[in-house]
Amino acid sequence: MNIKDIKDPSFLKDLNTEQLKELANDIRRFLLETVSKTGGHLSSNLGVVELTIALHYVFDAPKDRILFDVGHQSYVHKILTGRADQMDTLRQFEGLSGFQKRRESIYDCFEAGHSSTALSTALGMAVARDLNHEDYQVIPVVGDASMMSGLSLEALNQIGFRKNKVIIVFNDNNMSIDKNVGSLTKAFAKLRTSKTYNELKLSIKDILRKQNFGQALIQSIHDVKNKIQNGIVDSGIFNEFDIYYLGPIDGNDIEKLIEAFRIAKEKEYSCVIHCVTKKGKGYPYTENDQDGVWHGVGSFDIATGQFLKQNKEGTKSCSGIIADALSDLMKENEDIVAITPAMKVGSGMKELFKEYPQRTFDCGIAEDHAVCFASGLSLNGKRPFLSIYSSFSQRAYDQFNQELSRMDLPVVVGLDRSGLVGEDGETHHGIYDISFLRPLPNAVIAQGKDAEEMRDLLYSAFLQKHPFFLRYGRGSLPCETDHSFKEIPIGTWEWEIRTEDADAVILSYGPDVMRLKEEILKEGLSCDLVNARFLKPIDSSLMDEILERGLPVYVYTADILKGGLGDEILEYANRKEKKPEIFLTGIDDHEVYQGDTELLKKKEGIDIPSFLKQFKK
Amino acid sequence: MNIKDIKDPSFLKDLNTEQLKELANDIRRFLLETVSKTGGHLSSNLGVVELTIALHYVFDAPKDRILFDVGHQSYVHKILTGRADQMDTLRQFEGLSGFQKRRESIYDCFEAGHSSTALSTALGMAVARDLNHEDYQVIPVVGDASMMSGLSLEALNQIGFRKNKVIIVFNDNNMSIDKNVGSLTKAFAKLRTSKTYNELKLSIKDILRKQNFGQALIQSIHDVKNKIQNGIVDSGIFNEFDIYYLGPIDGNDIEKLIEAFRIAKEKEYSCVIHCVTKKGKGYPYTENDQDGVWHGVGSFDIATGQFLKQNKEGTKSCSGIIADALSDLMKENEDIVAITPAMKVGSGMKELFKEYPQRTFDCGIAEDHAVCFASGLSLNGKRPFLSIYSSFSQRAYDQFNQELSRMDLPVVVGLDRSGLVGEDGETHHGIYDISFLRPLPNAVIAQGKDAEEMRDLLYSAFLQKHPFFLRYGRGSLPCETDHSFKEIPIGTWEWEIRTEDADAVILSYGPDVMRLKEEILKEGLSCDLVNARFLKPIDSSLMDEILERGLPVYVYTADILKGGLGDEILEYANRKEKKPEIFLTGIDDHEVYQGDTELLKKKEGIDIPSFLKQFKK
Repeated sequence: MNIKDIKDPSFLKDLNTEQLKELANDIRRFLLETVSKTGGHLSSNLGVVELTIALHYVFDAPKDRILFDVGHQSYVHKILTGRADQMDTLRQFEGLSGFQKRRESIYDCFEAGHSSTALSTALGMAVARDLNHEDYQVIPVVGDASMMSGLSLEALNQIGFRKNKVIIVFNDNNMSIDKNVGSLTKAFAKLRTSKTYNELKLSIKDILRKQNFGQALIQSIHDVKNKIQNGIVDSGIFNEFDIYYLGPIDGNDIEKLIEAFRIAKEKEYSCVIHCVTKKGKGYPYTENDQDGVWHGVGSFDIATGQFLKQNKEGTKSCSGIIADALSDLMKENEDIVAITPAMKVGSGMKELFKEYPQRTFDCGIAEDHAVCFASGLSLNGKRPFLSIYSSFSQRAYDQFNQELSRMDLPVVVGLDRSGLVGEDGETHHGIYDISFLRPLPNAVIAQGKDAEEMRDLLYSAFLQKHPFFLRYGRGSLPCETDHSFKEIPIGTWEWEIRTEDADAVILSYGPDVMRLKEEILKEGLSCDLVNARFLKPIDSSLMDEILERGLPVYVYTADILKGGLGDEILEYANRKEKKPEIFLTGIDDHEVYQGDTELLKKKEGIDIPSFLKQFKK
Repeated sequence: MNIKDIKDPSFLKDLNTEQLKELANDIRRFLLETVSKTGGHLSSNLGVVELTIALHYVFDAPKDRILFDVGHQSYVHKILTGRADQMDTLRQFEGLSGFQKRRESIYDCFEAGHSSTALSTALGMAVARDLNHEDYQVIPVVGDASMMSGLSLEALNQIGFRKNKVIIVFNDNNMSIDKNVGSLTKAFAKLRTSKTYNELKLSIKDILRKQNFGQALIQSIHDVKNKIQNGIVDSGIFNEFDIYYLGPIDGNDIEKLIEAFRIAKEKEYSCVIHCVTKKGKGYPYTENDQDGVWHGVGSFDIATGQFLKQNKEGTKSCSGIIADALSDLMKENEDIVAITPAMKVGSGMKELFKEYPQRTFDCGIAEDHAVCFASGLSLNGKRPFLSIYSSFSQRAYDQFNQELSRMDLPVVVGLDRSGLVGEDGETHHGIYDISFLRPLPNAVIAQGKDAEEMRDLLYSAFLQKHPFFLRYGRGSLPCETDHSFKEIPIGTWEWEIRTEDADAVILSYGPDVMRLKEEILKEGLSCDLVNARFLKPIDSSLMDEILERGLPVYVYTADILKGGLGDEILEYANRKEKKPEIFLTGIDDHEVYQGDTELLKKKEGIDIPSFLKQFKK
């Protein structure tokens, strides 16, 4: 069938098993074709083709609520709910989102972008349903890495405790983005490799019938026997949470999935359906990917599996620049250790982990734990570097406050993907970190203008003893191969352009400084330019020099305006006798959606050419 | 012995069991005597007297690292490490902290205040130890409520996965502050009520010897049998995390504790020692407390169990004022539901939970889950009110951003204990919330000046559809019994004092407005006063009126200055042609320690009399 003709999932109900399987093949082909052009999350979607078809076959969305945890595995759901014809706009400005989005479709009752929220939200929905005396199913679909996150475990603890029915579809491919870590991996594997639920039920019952238990044993292992009789002896961790377990199911077998979902639908109580899926199924490159390089991809050639966009010659991703610098520093300083919360590949640390297997740590999707773990390392003399996406770092905000800032511990936090991130949109923009970190005592916040300064800031971070937050963005920068370092004293700025007769001073930070410089010089504008590389503490002597000159000050940022560097400058200037004119540029008080970063800046009216236009005579 | 003569725990090693038991009695008496005068955490400390003695008897602190999760149960540890003579300064300005504090003693290798960080930190310490080739034990002591928190579960997942040994002392009294919630409560109870570890081992072995298992059964329940043979069939949830389980032990039996700790000390791998303690042991009032009213107490009469300080006649705690208002609103609006993360008593919601058992929810120590749960409720049409301590709300910061602000969901968050909280000190001050919430789009932030305005703000919060953060502080306010409500339009301020010939305008919020008013009128100062009850959005028309008058503007806050209302005023004024002089008062960029709130304000130079002095001619 023509995938783009699908208007809603109702047509599924009329298909037989063979037709459903054929549909799965068609969708898989369609996914490959579209994502190879648009880029996006490929492997996770290839893995859930049958699962999503079976969900929409058995349940009745939008009456029944299907919540895809994180949401990057919802492409098949989008296709089945009438959005296939927009798949070519995926992740583009005003196009289809790469996640579930309520504004996009009535079939998206939920939206996320950060992991592990679906179970808690589903329980809230189920409680509301029961309070309202309504009748429908609530079905969160949760991956195994996400299931091990504290937030999911807290939700399981409540779901097992309450009577409000939730059908948990446990999508287990034994991968997060990367290979999973943590002892629950073993617990899940034990479940995964056990007999399927039907066979188990039969064999245990048979055995019980055949055996003549001694009374003493029956008494003693009463609990165990009960479990055996209920056929849930292998329900493991879910049994501890008191949630009925059904599985494991072959998560790519439509018939088995339909059977299991039907059983779950009939139950009166919450249950987990353990679906073992193959991440990347149906495409050799994704099937064989153990490192997660096919998790989120740019455009690629289907036949060869070659990615089409490569870093420009002589450039490197910011993550890579930092990882390389860290590797150099770890050679010199044995105390430095590196931590990632499940972002080894995204943070460019794959090689580093191979190079230093004893001194690198993947904490799983557990940002809060990762910071406490780092605090423990630093309390016993180590110098931890924790790489964490700016937007995900919000998950560790209390630990930034209580562990790092309050105790003034020398932990270096690499805030990867700071600033606008483009196609992932509003759930992933790292535009809040300056605002939420600036109020924390003892915190140092910095961002480098280029690869060399990024390296030097990292080096300097390990020469001091305060919690040090080093921002760097998405994307690539020119990168030389020089491996030297020089110290940048904490809280020092520098004049990037300093003339005698400028009409204004511009303050900025990060690679925007170099972009501003280039434009100012090209256009011959009469503006001086300061590289405000420390967002906290700011350079008071350079600030005083600026104020002394009495020129108007323009603070250019592409982060959220409220609470950012602009506020810091206003505060500082306000304490002085001689107050300059100050003009702030930044992102206004609203969400910024997805799209090419430069386009987003234009739409916000904060692109550098527009900003500089005001200085043209 | 005289408890105050204890210099360090080394003397314990020379005592025999009878002497250790006698010491336990002495310490318990001493605890009752001191805490009855100073106030503090009583029940949790009475429960761990034997446990703490046994820890210091078996292990060698400070070489061995003992980490008390949260830390409010560390009084006995303080006594045994030479701080008994300072116990009369407990929780006072410059006195002994109510938590572990590194600056207080070399025996405090760790410090907290918020729950569930000890396991992650301990793992970090253990990894550092092993990388450094050092030899000592790391011993986190974690309560059962804290063990169910996501952060602890994430740490268990890593501890079971790694080879770095940690001895987890699981202090299980089946209480958080309140009675526990969650299905793991059942899992813990199953463990707690099983036979003790020695007995279990023997009886299972006996049984196995006596039984003649059929081959089919042995095959089929191979896994179960293995567990039985290892004597860990009942290790339940800890087995799922692949951590060796030892228990349950009577946690108030010194001999049993010493035996178990010695076994754990000899093991090569991480283990959990399950100690079942009696919270509040040895004092009838605390032993029989099921509601947690004896968790944190003021001074009391030992003989009668009467608390000495009561709310002043006609006053009520802010928590109580809000809970009452909520109860009134829930009568009228069936859609309103109330949520607490394990703070039913602290948040004054005990009666509310009795009144509305179907519409009130205790989520356990799981602030992030609580917000997601609330978002699910609101997505399905309910109007959730979530009460959460300001300082603990940092645990839900990502959810405030991603779930509430980004999706613009109509959830009302009561930020209890906002502002300086006094005796609990730097871990508990709720002085950051305005700064970290102000950058979030769609967020409304408000604080009422008195009981009536608090009620009206709560009422108004349910009349609108944005995420609404309602701050209120610790302490009590005069409270009338009138149950009426009137709407306060979002973003409106009011003149509290408005004259024609004032020399200045003061802006403030919360009960400080009334304190300022009283002083201004009493002293006859020439200042007008604005009740800036909305921190976001601010009242632009009233702001314009202020700017129009051209008077100097003084912003008085007792919260952290950076990122607060002052910055908002600076931003607003900066966009205007006519800029007034602006003076900001607030807490500077540093930690504020413990002590009486008024005293702390004086030390910060931000008490109201000092602030108003500048207006005196």
